[in-house]
Amino acid sequence: MTLPDRESFLALDREDPLAGARERFAIPDGLIYLDGNSLGPLPEGLAERLAEVVTGEWGRGLITSWNGAGWIDLPVRVGEKIAPLIGAAPGQVVAADSTSINLFKVMAAALAARPGRTVILSDPENFPTDLYMAQGLAAAGIGAEFRLCPVAEIPAALDRNVAVVALSHVDFKSGRLHDMAAITRAAHAAGALIVWDLAHSAGALPVALDDADADFAVGCSYKYLNGGPGATAFLYVNRRLQDAVVSPLTGWMGHAAPFAFDRAYRPAPGVARFLCGTPPILSLAALDHALDIWRDVDPARVREKSLALARQFMALVDGLDRAYGLEIVTPRVDAERGSHVSVRHPDGYAIVQALIEAGVIGDFREPDLMRFGFTPLYTRHVDIHDAVAALERILREGRYRAPRFAVRGAVT
Amino acid sequence: MTLPDRESFLALDREDPLAGARERFAIPDGLIYLDGNSLGPLPEGLAERLAEVVTGEWGRGLITSWNGAGWIDLPVRVGEKIAPLIGAAPGQVVAADSTSINLFKVMAAALAARPGRTVILSDPENFPTDLYMAQGLAAAGIGAEFRLCPVAEIPAALDRNVAVVALSHVDFKSGRLHDMAAITRAAHAAGALIVWDLAHSAGALPVALDDADADFAVGCSYKYLNGGPGATAFLYVNRRLQDAVVSPLTGWMGHAAPFAFDRAYRPAPGVARFLCGTPPILSLAALDHALDIWRDVDPARVREKSLALARQFMALVDGLDRAYGLEIVTPRVDAERGSHVSVRHPDGYAIVQALIEAGVIGDFREPDLMRFGFTPLYTRHVDIHDAVAALERILREGRYRAPRFAVRGAVT
Repeated sequence: MTLPDRESFLALDREDPLAGARERFAIPDGLIYLDGNSLGPLPEGLAERLAEVVTGEWGRGLITSWNGAGWIDLPVRVGEKIAPLIGAAPGQVVAADSTSINLFKVMAAALAARPGRTVILSDPENFPTDLYMAQGLAAAGIGAEFRLCPVAEIPAALDRNVAVVALSHVDFKSGRLHDMAAITRAAHAAGALIVWDLAHSAGALPVALDDADADFAVGCSYKYLNGGPGATAFLYVNRRLQDAVVSPLTGWMGHAAPFAFDRAYRPAPGVARFLCGTPPILSLAALDHALDIWRDVDPARVREKSLALARQFMALVDGLDRAYGLEIVTPRVDAERGSHVSVRHPDGYAIVQALIEAGVIGDFREPDLMRFGFTPLYTRHVDIHDAVAALERILREGRYRAPRFAVRGAVT
Repeated sequence: MTLPDRESFLALDREDPLAGARERFAIPDGLIYLDGNSLGPLPEGLAERLAEVVTGEWGRGLITSWNGAGWIDLPVRVGEKIAPLIGAAPGQVVAADSTSINLFKVMAAALAARPGRTVILSDPENFPTDLYMAQGLAAAGIGAEFRLCPVAEIPAALDRNVAVVALSHVDFKSGRLHDMAAITRAAHAAGALIVWDLAHSAGALPVALDDADADFAVGCSYKYLNGGPGATAFLYVNRRLQDAVVSPLTGWMGHAAPFAFDRAYRPAPGVARFLCGTPPILSLAALDHALDIWRDVDPARVREKSLALARQFMALVDGLDRAYGLEIVTPRVDAERGSHVSVRHPDGYAIVQALIEAGVIGDFREPDLMRFGFTPLYTRHVDIHDAVAALERILREGRYRAPRFAVRGAVT
């Protein structure tokens, strides 16, 4: 079997207004990279920028660079670069720590802001670290309780004891996009606060935190924001809440006057009170550079192309022999989809390994899901065609039936 | 006035067995850097190593580098490199997060391990973020109480309600080195656990956590370990406690099987359960490289030279005109001193600024302390002479009486 019409995909690439952005990333020759939803590729100029930070700012500037090179303000400056990508007006986002730790901060702050309520409500399909952090918070002896309930049933589950609803905007397995505005309204109507995890939506689609009047959000910057492996995460606190909530992780960088060396903690005004320890400058500087690509990119165009790539991918997969046993689990409706598509197959793990050997990188999530991420800044239409062609060959030839080899799994 | 005998300092440098280590750091020509206790300088080869991580491991390896380049194991691998520097047998140290966040993890774990006891006891001179993190923990609604008491009075203050004693090994202002073994014994005798902050001792002097039978420790790796600005911090959990304690920050990297994507948190065996979110690879890779210098360096030699440099510094300051009004606040006894010396002067801030203009970098701590750090890997004996000579000129000529200019303060 041959797939139809490779030329038509090439034609789409020739007309693609985002086509030029691909040159601004390092994509190894011949590789089709459909795992930018897990780790974004290296942006152009980042290696050079980081070398200057290391050699110039650290090597020559030494301690003076905390002020002289503006290191001390990086968490806020980087946060302000992320803000427009997630629909946040200035003064509500900082870059800090990991997504897990930021979740702890904002869930604890939200709980404390709802005295008399004890429940953190989440979805069993939420990303595991989100579940774990909530479990840890509930187990910390503060009298909180952690409950799970499918997203569709959350409005009905919002009783008077729910303090916080904590959800991922896009489901990391299925790729389903949840309705931020509607769920936020439902939470507020029940007197609860909401925490959104934007790991799989920031940089992938326009997010509208302010418009939804969301309370808190956290997110990851090593996926669609291309900040590098383990890049510094971010958090959002709605301005309306900022002076009424505090982080339980009251480190010196969240102090109103960190260098006064007071003995008593006094939270900084605004979202900066959610900073904690000394910021990791090398990682933050990399992210700072990576975010500059968004100066020239229209997020609406990114969303359009992402949806188109996914539609094309699903149409091609639909056209494959039914005997291959593939099942697309991601919603077909554009408005219900993030920026990746998951395909179920009982031998998904082995097929993903065979795809990698064939130069097509996607990833696998237990027990049987192959994930393919569509990242419009560097994914071409023809990549969709070629990836499905490789998939088809592997299935047709049964190549994935080679013995499995052990891997530890990649970082989502 | 001229200081005596510059030649004798040069002679000491010629005989110094550590003299060769200086070439392995980037020290700008003509600069005397006495602030390695705040930010260590750039190690040789680090820029090149980081470029390879960025361009090769991230740029070409992409997602496969989590396993292929061993990123996933970096927190443990880097921890094992730090372990011998702090007197820890293998399997007890990981590199993760910031010192502040690690303090929260281990103080909370220690509290939970002492049910029925509620007090976290610290010293009012402890570093502010240590105090703040304890305050945040006590305010988190877990029924804990935070008390302060000077270190000398801690043994007497250890009542049956003290769960945790949390102290810095070396006082960040005075440079006083506390007796880890004795204080740990006192805490244990009273049924309390101890948390040591090694920010100003790891890499500065031999630390003996296992010998002292310490329970927990945290530390900073951007000072004497030269890991770069905001480098990933570390934590130690004594093996005897590891399976009985848990971190409240139960992120996926501390899960027994992070890539099984279970819904329920299950702590990893050993100290790895104190990991939390996705590790910051760029920062960790820099630290990993920086630690390699210790393969060729004997920590006992480092301690000897550090003490000698401080003695020489204090002797030269003692020899200055009393009318200058300098007062050394750091203990004179070697065994009670860390690796920096603090000098009090009412115009300390302005004098430090004038020293920086003269090419001698120390730092200032409110309200009136000038700090000078002695870092034997790259500080020469003649630097001590020349720094005090510069200080003397500034005091004699009254140059520090120029108008102050605003700075935000540097990161300790």
